[in-house]
Amino acid sequence: MPKVAVIMGSTSDLPVMQDAIDILKELSVEVDVDIVSAHRTPEKMVDFGKNAHKNGYHVIIAGAGGAAHLPGMVASLSPLPVIGVPVKSSNSIDGWDSVLSILQMPGGVPVATVALNGAKNAGILAAQILGSQNSEIQERIIAYKESLKQKVIEGAKHLNKPSLGYK
Amino acid sequence: MPKVAVIMGSTSDLPVMQDAIDILKELSVEVDVDIVSAHRTPEKMVDFGKNAHKNGYHVIIAGAGGAAHLPGMVASLSPLPVIGVPVKSSNSIDGWDSVLSILQMPGGVPVATVALNGAKNAGILAAQILGSQNSEIQERIIAYKESLKQKVIEGAKHLNKPSLGYK
Amino acid sequence: MPKVAVIMGSTSDLPVMQDAIDILKELSVEVDVDIVSAHRTPEKMVDFGKNAHKNGYHVIIAGAGGAAHLPGMVASLSPLPVIGVPVKSSNSIDGWDSVLSILQMPGGVPVATVALNGAKNAGILAAQILGSQNSEIQERIIAYKESLKQKVIEGAKHLNKPSLGYK
Amino acid sequence: MPKVAVIMGSTSDLPVMQDAIDILKELSVEVDVDIVSAHRTPEKMVDFGKNAHKNGYHVIIAGAGGAAHLPGMVASLSPLPVIGVPVKSSNSIDGWDSVLSILQMPGGVPVATVALNGAKNAGILAAQILGSQNSEIQERIIAYKESLKQKVIEGAKHLNKPSLGYK
Amino acid sequence: MPKVAVIMGSTSDLPVMQDAIDILKELSVEVDVDIVSAHRTPEKMVDFGKNAHKNGYHVIIAGAGGAAHLPGMVASLSPLPVIGVPVKSSNSIDGWDSVLSILQMPGGVPVATVALNGAKNAGILAAQILGSQNSEIQERIIAYKESLKQKVIEGAKHLNKPSLGYK
Amino acid sequence: MPKVAVIMGSTSDLPVMQDAIDILKELSVEVDVDIVSAHRTPEKMVDFGKNAHKNGYHVIIAGAGGAAHLPGMVASLSPLPVIGVPVKSSNSIDGWDSVLSILQMPGGVPVATVALNGAKNAGILAAQILGSQNSEIQERIIAYKESLKQKVIEGAKHLNKPSLGYK
Amino acid sequence: MPKVAVIMGSTSDLPVMQDAIDILKELSVEVDVDIVSAHRTPEKMVDFGKNAHKNGYHVIIAGAGGAAHLPGMVASLSPLPVIGVPVKSSNSIDGWDSVLSILQMPGGVPVATVALNGAKNAGILAAQILGSQNSEIQERIIAYKESLKQKVIEGAKHLNKPSLGYK
Amino acid sequence: MPKVAVIMGSTSDLPVMQDAIDILKELSVEVDVDIVSAHRTPEKMVDFGKNAHKNGYHVIIAGAGGAAHLPGMVASLSPLPVIGVPVKSSNSIDGWDSVLSILQMPGGVPVATVALNGAKNAGILAAQILGSQNSEIQERIIAYKESLKQKVIEGAKHLNKPSLGYK
Repeated sequence: MPKVAVIMGSTSDLPVMQDAIDILKELSVEVDVDIVSAHRTPEKMVDFGKNAHKNGYHVIIAGAGGAAHLPGMVASLSPLPVIGVPVKSSNSIDGWDSVLSILQMPGGVPVATVALNGAKNAGILAAQILGSQNSEIQERIIAYKESLKQKVIEGAKHLNKPSLGYK
Repeated sequence: MPKVAVIMGSTSDLPVMQDAIDILKELSVEVDVDIVSAHRTPEKMVDFGKNAHKNGYHVIIAGAGGAAHLPGMVASLSPLPVIGVPVKSSNSIDGWDSVLSILQMPGGVPVATVALNGAKNAGILAAQILGSQNSEIQERIIAYKESLKQKVIEGAKHLNKPSLGYK
Repeated sequence: MPKVAVIMGSTSDLPVMQDAIDILKELSVEVDVDIVSAHRTPEKMVDFGKNAHKNGYHVIIAGAGGAAHLPGMVASLSPLPVIGVPVKSSNSIDGWDSVLSILQMPGGVPVATVALNGAKNAGILAAQILGSQNSEIQERIIAYKESLKQKVIEGAKHLNKPSLGYK
Repeated sequence: MPKVAVIMGSTSDLPVMQDAIDILKELSVEVDVDIVSAHRTPEKMVDFGKNAHKNGYHVIIAGAGGAAHLPGMVASLSPLPVIGVPVKSSNSIDGWDSVLSILQMPGGVPVATVALNGAKNAGILAAQILGSQNSEIQERIIAYKESLKQKVIEGAKHLNKPSLGYK
Repeated sequence: MPKVAVIMGSTSDLPVMQDAIDILKELSVEVDVDIVSAHRTPEKMVDFGKNAHKNGYHVIIAGAGGAAHLPGMVASLSPLPVIGVPVKSSNSIDGWDSVLSILQMPGGVPVATVALNGAKNAGILAAQILGSQNSEIQERIIAYKESLKQKVIEGAKHLNKPSLGYK
Repeated sequence: MPKVAVIMGSTSDLPVMQDAIDILKELSVEVDVDIVSAHRTPEKMVDFGKNAHKNGYHVIIAGAGGAAHLPGMVASLSPLPVIGVPVKSSNSIDGWDSVLSILQMPGGVPVATVALNGAKNAGILAAQILGSQNSEIQERIIAYKESLKQKVIEGAKHLNKPSLGYK
Repeated sequence: MPKVAVIMGSTSDLPVMQDAIDILKELSVEVDVDIVSAHRTPEKMVDFGKNAHKNGYHVIIAGAGGAAHLPGMVASLSPLPVIGVPVKSSNSIDGWDSVLSILQMPGGVPVATVALNGAKNAGILAAQILGSQNSEIQERIIAYKESLKQKVIEGAKHLNKPSLGYK
Repeated sequence: MPKVAVIMGSTSDLPVMQDAIDILKELSVEVDVDIVSAHRTPEKMVDFGKNAHKNGYHVIIAGAGGAAHLPGMVASLSPLPVIGVPVKSSNSIDGWDSVLSILQMPGGVPVATVALNGAKNAGILAAQILGSQNSEIQERIIAYKESLKQKVIEGAKHLNKPSLGYK
């Protein structure tokens, strides 16, 4: 059973990163959560990064804010695909620092970056990665996308109620 | 055998996107290449996106510049993981438009974005995604990372040659 | 009787986009409203875009936020003029993503972009487009501009009341 | 016969603005060209703006760079739709000044802004505006879009020539 | 007696622009205030700009937000020094549009731009301009600067009170 | 006879700042030039700033690049109006640092900022400042503006030559 | 006993700069605090800068906002290492002005810049500078870093409580 | 004898980082140089960072480009002051990524950031740090600053040669 690790630099990132955990559970993907700080627990980070693929993980989601080094450093240590979530933390300059320090990795060490605070999308992307070679999980992705579509169609119906006068 | 599709909006993106193709071949991952324009061939894009997972692809790499809609639109149409490469095209404002229009996808439809012109990293990320459930490909990733390390160590040796006078 | 279609990616865009609807009604221009999501209902979008000019529409106003692909994708599918409204949605980086992913369209597929959250101006622009070949609507635009002028003149009078001491 | 006016702040903008003229001629739309500087010939600008709709024009395309006031000022003076082309002039800060001083118009006075240096798209947009109520011009737009599509398909064929080894 | 005109695009700019009026009165410089909108009352603006130097004004302060054309347009019409105040209006993108559309004037037509919302500094600058050839006003500027210095020195004394424990 | 001081942080700023000197000479305004570095000759700067108004200067033009402190520091030391020219020096980040460190002065100490590399406009602004209370100089400004207008009109005539085919 | 001077441009910077004072006291480093304004008390600044190293200081921390000249000017006057804290003051454009006008110093005059509002880090950096040649202070830095690590480990333990359901 | 370590992520950073080495040698400060890549040799980086203070270094200068993690990661591992040089590498977005990913460090782990490509200033800052407790090195800093001043004064003399006509 494939498994995803969700790590973040600080418990203060949890309100954002919770969205990744929630959507993975909704998609019935197994997930472990931990606090791993690039700047305050560098040895723990190295240990985590070097062994994640041996410890049963298939995808890593790493969230961090400001000069966000966690996703890139874990990507340098692990052969697994690493998804980076730029967190708009309190010390961030409108999120630009988080985005650029995760996205602009040098040749050889990619981080799959999602939108600012886009932890939900990180979870979906992790499931898509697992689903690319696991038809059961891919089916859940297809069903999830269908549900998104239905919500839009419902919203449009509601909008076009004569009482709203839009049409 | 898992397979990667590399698509781009225009043949003018090929000099950048070639790096993805080259590294995938170097990593012995099968790859197909095509031109699919979100804005000029929208029906071809829809057809490609809806059927890619049925046509034997496991990962999609999509590159585009300016208001770059191809990666996000393909991601909306396919259950596969989509890697987006922001291309600094001639009509781009320093690359910011390409980066933001690929990265900042709404909740529900992630694109795994890499650095500006980072096609090489897109290829490596695609291999890591395949490797997360394919130990043979993962081994090649591990060997590739080892080779990066060796190059740095060689460079450092060269630097420290007495003749250069650095040490 | 010329008609304008106002579409948006999500019901959450309605508070912004309502301004377009209101000003079009004020200018006695017929308007239909719908929710069409590029990323969640791509087929509906394709269907809408390919047929809008056959379904009696003369101008399309499309609003979206973040990596905003709706205006550009509809522009790729329709021969009609498409007005794009960058919406400063909750997942936006200060609006830059919405602005750039609507404005920076490649050669061949223009989107008539207005200011961030500028839905009111989108409505006026739609009326100006219709008015360019419809003298009745153009007269209303002229009258509307005159009313803007009068409001400024009233404001200036008020300011120059001796009791305010400005003059 | 509907007619488009292409104006710009300086002859130095002509290399960029020529694209608008060329595509309009290609689409058989009548076009007049003039130099009208907001900052150096303000009276000429006021005269042009107030009378353009009386002088047989249906759409105005205005290009300018730096603190680009021409498009917005003409829009304040005319009831016609005004398309603004941000020109990346030599005194521009990477084009941001041109883009923002054309795009961010206040409520009541829209400018239909296209991409930085996007004069070609300005010409196409002008034709789309005329075509929205002129089926002959709309047919030419449809044919033009079809030609764009064919070019992409040709490019893709070329790419897939066995000699290139992509497929 | 030299006189300053303070104009702004809308009464909504008054809370910001009031600072210019207040400091000018504090420095005993005569000031008139008016609402002149570049986009809604262009003829009034032309009339104001062409005649300000004949109507007894020596310096013009013009404030505007978003695509702020008022300061630059008045500068194009008047031989007087024009001070531009970029106002962070509600439709502004973090103030960048206001700043760039006032600052980045083309060669030949300068606007003396002050900081975002820096109306107080606009007033002081106007007084400095008048004072450069009027020793009475220059004396008041010198006294004003001395008062700024004293306030800092008082603040430092307060800080170093033993009860605050800083020293 | 009123006099302008043009100072700059380094001889490397001279190619940009020369435009201010040239236009002042063209407008028959007396000008002195000196190198005064805020960061390398701070005492010379303090001496210059404190005494400029006693040494016969009426306006100061100060150019600097990168973290450009010269204009603001001189403004803090002198009661004269100080015009700041942001220079896009080799160590600048696209000019943003020069612009912001000159423009964004705190309340009490204005710098009249012109466009990036806008030394010509700094010279014109200095002349306008002198002209606001000196009718002879103001007449030259009026004549200069008239010459700008004539150049545009000439350019437009040239454009409309039948041989160019624009009209 | 080595000593740090903490200066700032205004008492309004104190809520941010207090963090530097607090952490230095926590690390048992002696600290003096003063208000020194580059723009309102330039002579006091020159006096402070020229004599700080003679007055027993070993490191200077200088905080300022907007066009923040204090850190760079003090660095030009003193041979001591100067740490600059960009303060996001009320007149700042999202902090960019403060950051760039402190960071982008010309060759010859460095300022050791820390993050926006990063006064705490300025204090730690000052202690590290002192500690680089003072083993007692370096020991405290090592202990401080160990405490940061322990806090992260505690946070992670808390997260993994079964009742939270993360693991 | 105090010693500085200059490290960088790649030999391609050497042309920029050489300035730090040169100025340190000019100031007679001992310096060692090495290539240490955060992303390609993470274990070497950890080893270097944890032991630098035991290996006789007193200051570390670390240069890197793009998503530049080396300075921050070394700062997390070492109690020494770490000076970060943002390098404008070929994969950088105008240098913003390098600047922000070095500058915006979280509370607890400062990096003393200098200007983009400001390696020379990094070297001077390192000498100032050593000089703060080493009077011999401080004397050299004072002499170096005096030489900067003399160069400006020479440049100004040259400028004022009658043959140049500036005065």
